[in-house]
Amino acid sequence: MSGSFRKVLDLSSGDSQNAGIKPITFVRQVIAGCTYPRILQGDNLPPDARLRAQKLLSHFDGGSIGSYTESCGMTYVRNTIAKFISLRDGGVWSCPEQVFITVDIQRALMVMLRLLCPSEGVSAVMIPDPAPHTLARLLERMDVVPVTYQLQEQSGWSVEKMELNRAIQVSRGQCFPRAIYITNPGNPTGHVQSRESIQGVIRFAAEEQLFLLVYQDSVFADGSEFLSYKRVLVEMGEPYSDRVQLASMHSLSNGIMGECGFRMGYMELVNVDEAVMLYTEVLLTGDLCPPVIGQIALDVMADPPRPGEPSYSLYTQEVASRRMTLKHNMSRAVEFINDLPGFSCQSVQSGIFIYPHLTLPHTALTHSQSVGLLYSRSLLKDQGVCVGFSEDHTHSQSCCHLRMCVLMPSDELEEALRRLRCFHFQFLKKYCDPGESLNEPQQSV
Amino acid sequence: MSGSFRKVLDLSSGDSQNAGIKPITFVRQVIAGCTYPRILQGDNLPPDARLRAQKLLSHFDGGSIGSYTESCGMTYVRNTIAKFISLRDGGVWSCPEQVFITVDIQRALMVMLRLLCPSEGVSAVMIPDPAPHTLARLLERMDVVPVTYQLQEQSGWSVEKMELNRAIQVSRGQCFPRAIYITNPGNPTGHVQSRESIQGVIRFAAEEQLFLLVYQDSVFADGSEFLSYKRVLVEMGEPYSDRVQLASMHSLSNGIMGECGFRMGYMELVNVDEAVMLYTEVLLTGDLCPPVIGQIALDVMADPPRPGEPSYSLYTQEVASRRMTLKHNMSRAVEFINDLPGFSCQSVQSGIFIYPHLTLPHTALTHSQSVGLLYSRSLLKDQGVCVGFSEDHTHSQSCCHLRMCVLMPSDELEEALRRLRCFHFQFLKKYCDPGESLNEPQQSV
Repeated sequence: MSGSFRKVLDLSSGDSQNAGIKPITFVRQVIAGCTYPRILQGDNLPPDARLRAQKLLSHFDGGSIGSYTESCGMTYVRNTIAKFISLRDGGVWSCPEQVFITVDIQRALMVMLRLLCPSEGVSAVMIPDPAPHTLARLLERMDVVPVTYQLQEQSGWSVEKMELNRAIQVSRGQCFPRAIYITNPGNPTGHVQSRESIQGVIRFAAEEQLFLLVYQDSVFADGSEFLSYKRVLVEMGEPYSDRVQLASMHSLSNGIMGECGFRMGYMELVNVDEAVMLYTEVLLTGDLCPPVIGQIALDVMADPPRPGEPSYSLYTQEVASRRMTLKHNMSRAVEFINDLPGFSCQSVQSGIFIYPHLTLPHTALTHSQSVGLLYSRSLLKDQGVCVGFSEDHTHSQSCCHLRMCVLMPSDELEEALRRLRCFHFQFLKKYCDPGESLNEPQQSV
Repeated sequence: MSGSFRKVLDLSSGDSQNAGIKPITFVRQVIAGCTYPRILQGDNLPPDARLRAQKLLSHFDGGSIGSYTESCGMTYVRNTIAKFISLRDGGVWSCPEQVFITVDIQRALMVMLRLLCPSEGVSAVMIPDPAPHTLARLLERMDVVPVTYQLQEQSGWSVEKMELNRAIQVSRGQCFPRAIYITNPGNPTGHVQSRESIQGVIRFAAEEQLFLLVYQDSVFADGSEFLSYKRVLVEMGEPYSDRVQLASMHSLSNGIMGECGFRMGYMELVNVDEAVMLYTEVLLTGDLCPPVIGQIALDVMADPPRPGEPSYSLYTQEVASRRMTLKHNMSRAVEFINDLPGFSCQSVQSGIFIYPHLTLPHTALTHSQSVGLLYSRSLLKDQGVCVGFSEDHTHSQSCCHLRMCVLMPSDELEEALRRLRCFHFQFLKKYCDPGESLNEPQQSV
């Protein structure tokens, strides 16, 4: 194995701008205008970016982004987001006072866990497996026990009611589940839940009196309709629509914006008591206010240029190009990976990750207790490709899943795939028993 | 009382840009350039701002501020800060690996409390009275008990060894003090500790095995030398210099920058075990990374334009003007307030607040359990001037302290003072027994 490569390609984190995807121009123009208002004079920026910056500045105290804002985010931006949610959900009402802007959704989730999980007793949250890779650590920090429910890979990572029941039964007597955490679309699995599937989870939450913590983001794939939990909940009617409590979270880091560095997100609380909302506000007051730049970016995300405005054409072109790149990369990567011996990858409906299953002969395990660690470390060392991984101990062979972000320029993806193939065959040669054939792609289940 | 005023003047929060102080141009230019690199072409920005933006961009992954940075902040910026600290401390070595960049110092303090205060037993932190107004709430959120030591107003808010001993003795058997929190310069009192005073606190921390949590900021007043705890500690030599553990915190919100909206700060850890520093990093990894815009501003704060560079002249002029305004406002406000019956205000050496003591006849208390609340609420309602307050129950009369930020354009300050005087005499007339004379300024002690 060589170890000679030009640069490291990081597919592990979902950081699209690091991978070479350009930011959306309009958001950067508005931020630059708000930051250094002198460039609003002259023709540095298109007129609608100038206007937006001036409008936003007029809502900052002292007319400057250097001032504190309200602790839950600027009223103006919370209004914009509420309108955006309502539009997304086919007109279902969204109240600005129920929208809380936070320094990314980690913070929103911390606040919710603090509210939901009293320090007496062992509080737990049901979480999917697989889940976003930062989730387990966050629960640990908050002294909250995870109760894991398995997503069903063979049926496209579906959430099964039977599995939810099994998981909560197992937890009885050991801990007190307060909430169920969902990502829809799935992170890192990319599955999108149907209305029926969402309804099933809502009914389960109602039966078990669990708070719904939902992380949702924009959907990329053609033909997969995005339904928010909020909308499905409202449309289910009573007794669900006015009782099941929900926090729906959204981040600037993923989706169309991909502005990871700004650290910004929001959550909408539904059916939550006013006193609890007030306490949410009190907890957020401790942070003084969310960073202003991210709030500006949220405003643009929720209210992008409209048809007829000068920046509309460039904005739609940039968004379309990003979606096209992602769609192309998704199918290319899934096809490529499924051609490699030992790999099996579900087709992906949304999100920015693929999550292939890798089966290696048992002999690979004699070299490491963790085949995922061995494989991903060697891949980074030998070919400079960084991927995430999760172990899989449910099979008789050495198995793991790899997490790979594919939102990057297509030529970068090609380079990453080329290196992966090169590495993969060398790895098989080195670690796997030549007696065991892996020339044909293996199905993991 | 009238209640007719043009706009609310908020002196409570220390938000200088809200009050009308302009931001430092260079920092805004560099951020705008990093955000929307197209304006780096042409002559929108001076050459040194362009260069700085290009240099910073070259250190971001993918050349974009939309990417994640390292969890403790960019290595490049941590280096800049370490050099800045070393320069501030007369050459005392500062190691970039010991500098942690966080989303403001609330977050840094939360991480330190998490490290220092185990969940078993009742952990406590010694805090001054008065203290920054956000401190008590933060301790409460972290389930940490405050052990209060009183600053001595009559001797310019000094920290007295005897009082520290008294406070820790009282706490025995009730809780376990793990750390002592200091603000130097004092917030909101504006006192600056001498070398001897700092040495006294360090010896006390060593004797009681307390971790030092120090919040320090730039110093404005003439003739008051700023000595950092770090420098004094190192210069004390053994057994202190290599043993007493210290976290020194600094924020972008106060001081020269006054960029409250960016939510950014850093801390330097001294004499802290490597394993603990690693765990600090692990805790911060949960936040993924600090917001990028604040990191850029920190870089500029720590390494401003130098003599001979194009922006040097404007930068020094802006800083000087801010200092001059502050100096002028400080003496003007202290003098003005001391002329009002019932008020007594210590002269202030640093910071952005004045913290006058207000003594009212006992009759005022018949109208409210809290004279501070009654006074500040009425002031806001009648004259639109918002100030902070703390109760003072140590006197036989109705007493409180007001917290008033004076970093604002001087004409705004004049307007606030005018309204305060107008309100004050009406308040006395309404609430105070005409038999008790308050025509002469009262000394509070």
